[in-house]
Amino acid sequence: MSHFLQLLLLLAIVVTAAKLAGALASRIGQPAVFGEILVGLVLGPTVLNVLGWPLFAAPAGGGAAGESAALLPVFRDLSEIGVVLLMFVAGLETDVAELRRVGSVAFWSAFGGVVLPFAGGAAVAVAFGYPLYWEGIFIGAILTATSVSISAQTLIDLGALRSREGSTILGAAVIDDVMGIIVLSLVVAFARASAGGVNLGQIAIVGVRIAVFFAAAVMAGRWLPHVFRWASALGVSQGVLGAALVVAFLYSWAAEYVGAIAAITGAYVAGVLIAQTEFKKQVDAGIHPLTYSMFVPAFFIGIGLQANGRELGDRAAFTVVLVLVAIVAKAVGCGVCARLAGFTTKEAVRVGAGMISRGEVGLIVAGYGLASGLIDREVFSASVIMVLATTMVTPPLLRLLFPPRHGPSVVVEETVAGPPEPVEAS
Amino acid sequence: MSHFLQLLLLLAIVVTAAKLAGALASRIGQPAVFGEILVGLVLGPTVLNVLGWPLFAAPAGGGAAGESAALLPVFRDLSEIGVVLLMFVAGLETDVAELRRVGSVAFWSAFGGVVLPFAGGAAVAVAFGYPLYWEGIFIGAILTATSVSISAQTLIDLGALRSREGSTILGAAVIDDVMGIIVLSLVVAFARASAGGVNLGQIAIVGVRIAVFFAAAVMAGRWLPHVFRWASALGVSQGVLGAALVVAFLYSWAAEYVGAIAAITGAYVAGVLIAQTEFKKQVDAGIHPLTYSMFVPAFFIGIGLQANGRELGDRAAFTVVLVLVAIVAKAVGCGVCARLAGFTTKEAVRVGAGMISRGEVGLIVAGYGLASGLIDREVFSASVIMVLATTMVTPPLLRLLFPPRHGPSVVVEETVAGPPEPVEAS
Repeated sequence: MSHFLQLLLLLAIVVTAAKLAGALASRIGQPAVFGEILVGLVLGPTVLNVLGWPLFAAPAGGGAAGESAALLPVFRDLSEIGVVLLMFVAGLETDVAELRRVGSVAFWSAFGGVVLPFAGGAAVAVAFGYPLYWEGIFIGAILTATSVSISAQTLIDLGALRSREGSTILGAAVIDDVMGIIVLSLVVAFARASAGGVNLGQIAIVGVRIAVFFAAAVMAGRWLPHVFRWASALGVSQGVLGAALVVAFLYSWAAEYVGAIAAITGAYVAGVLIAQTEFKKQVDAGIHPLTYSMFVPAFFIGIGLQANGRELGDRAAFTVVLVLVAIVAKAVGCGVCARLAGFTTKEAVRVGAGMISRGEVGLIVAGYGLASGLIDREVFSASVIMVLATTMVTPPLLRLLFPPRHGPSVVVEETVAGPPEPVEAS
Repeated sequence: MSHFLQLLLLLAIVVTAAKLAGALASRIGQPAVFGEILVGLVLGPTVLNVLGWPLFAAPAGGGAAGESAALLPVFRDLSEIGVVLLMFVAGLETDVAELRRVGSVAFWSAFGGVVLPFAGGAAVAVAFGYPLYWEGIFIGAILTATSVSISAQTLIDLGALRSREGSTILGAAVIDDVMGIIVLSLVVAFARASAGGVNLGQIAIVGVRIAVFFAAAVMAGRWLPHVFRWASALGVSQGVLGAALVVAFLYSWAAEYVGAIAAITGAYVAGVLIAQTEFKKQVDAGIHPLTYSMFVPAFFIGIGLQANGRELGDRAAFTVVLVLVAIVAKAVGCGVCARLAGFTTKEAVRVGAGMISRGEVGLIVAGYGLASGLIDREVFSASVIMVLATTMVTPPLLRLLFPPRHGPSVVVEETVAGPPEPVEAS
């Protein structure tokens, strides 16, 4: 079978598996993303090892054109485009005004929920024999960011999205998404700069590059409304969406090439900036079909395809401790800070529990660490287990802590990274 | 620069170039697709040779993960996904009921417009020294199919879409899209079967495989409404669009793997079958952002990136004759058959002129021939010139033949393969 036929078949399997698993997960009260990651693990080397099947073996002679690529690298490129799009959508959904309203409680709660898991993760890593630089610090970074999508969906399911605690959880989850990305960017930048031994001059250069990128990104952001107005007036099909993709891709590229930070940070910044233009809704309507039909399934399934649960054998203790620390450190860090910032104990406990779930950002950080050699495949696999466990524990916990909802049960469409997407025309 | 950063930058350049060129082409009264192919030629080895720039050179050591693919093969995969999606959309836009209404004139016009260019193309090839098997026959196949999108857009621009001639042109263009694909499929199947010498047994096997594929495709098509109803009830994000992609990819895969015909034929069949379910509009709304924002630009630009105008040196005469035959054979074949089927001479001339433009299908056939080694790169480049020339000649010709339109000039959004797409929510 030729390379391209293999790719078509793989994509068909991936989209089918992701959508079925997402639906099954929803049926048993779990977020869809939980099912998608889990089915990825099943398809990957942990259980079925689909890509190892003879069906997907490299075609003899490299195909008719003689220049086709191997299957896994192409699939990885599609996954990486998926995570760039996912972070762009997350940026697009970030409501800066809403964040200002939720105010200081959300900020301090997020802060506590970043610092304690970061310290806890690094401590666990060191206790299990990993060096602090950079494995320990990277494992800490993996534990920082709450999944804004999983929290939001759970709150919607519980009818508690607009409660005081609900708003705080959502605001804090968004803030620590940002904090998580900043932590990742700093860790990556400093780890790279010091790869040849810690060098203050190089770290200073990295600092300047980060500053230059953010300054240029914000300045260029002022031109975005003009760019979109212009693209809209071009009269070509999908002109606005095309412009959004170009902006997202260029910001991603510039983030890593100019700013020495992660490409996904650039995509997120592009999304936040576009969200503040009058074209947000138009971009939103087009980006969801593009992102969620094929690319995001490729990303979540790709996580499972890269993780290998069989490798966890002698790291089982590390994994279990990492999961426990991830849960306790986040709940305590967020809860205590919320209490100190003025919430009642009951409210603070709810906020703490609502922040436990990890998702995209943790996986992105872990995937980034794996790709750049800062963590090994076993730590990556442990991180995937951590994301699965925290994602699984949050919905039942919140259901225990929040009062039973009133009124009829409403089925809300699952969304992976933000509020419900616009209904497709019919 | 790492492989993935190169890919992001290349995609940003491709989408920008495609949309700007499309808009510019519209401004000077040409179809957008004309501008997209032309700018692809400019970016490709003919003028700028973008992929040869040091910026896009393979990163040393193959990137951090050590397993990244080269840039061109990945881009080619994206282009190929683009053409599968494009043909799926073309199938989706095919209105079987409308075709029945336009009736026999459209059918015979399409028939004449397939037979004469096919014979003409093969004759030109033989006259210039190519063997009849399979270069000559393949060059004939490249000349068969009218561009349904370019004809439709031109008729919309002229306000003549709903005239008697307009309906006939549109119907005939759709029919000969189908005929073109069938011709391609048969040529490919027989060329393959006889690669080791003409063998009647093998050709019979190919015939059986084609029959099995179409029978299975139509039978499976009866289950499509159930599949979509089920996908719709799953409650996952983009469930219906995801199902449409899976169906399109599986039909494409099966067409080539089971049916021995071109993968795009399968995508087209999937589109036609889905168009007859109640989910057509929902699929339509989601597939356009997915298809036209990134994948179709990648396909059209990819055509130019693969063609090399510099190679045409000593084939200039062949190219010029091929273009002339493409224009004359199509206009005469369609016009004479329309006249014989009952149209007046004036109407028949209009129909003949309206059918001249070649587009997607011709390029698809040519690209397929290149990839499978049935034609060489010089014939491929000549085919691209032929598509450009016929695309360029049609709109001004129709403007001459149709009466000036009444009422205010309406700017209609360009669409590459069908009627105007649904307006994005705002």
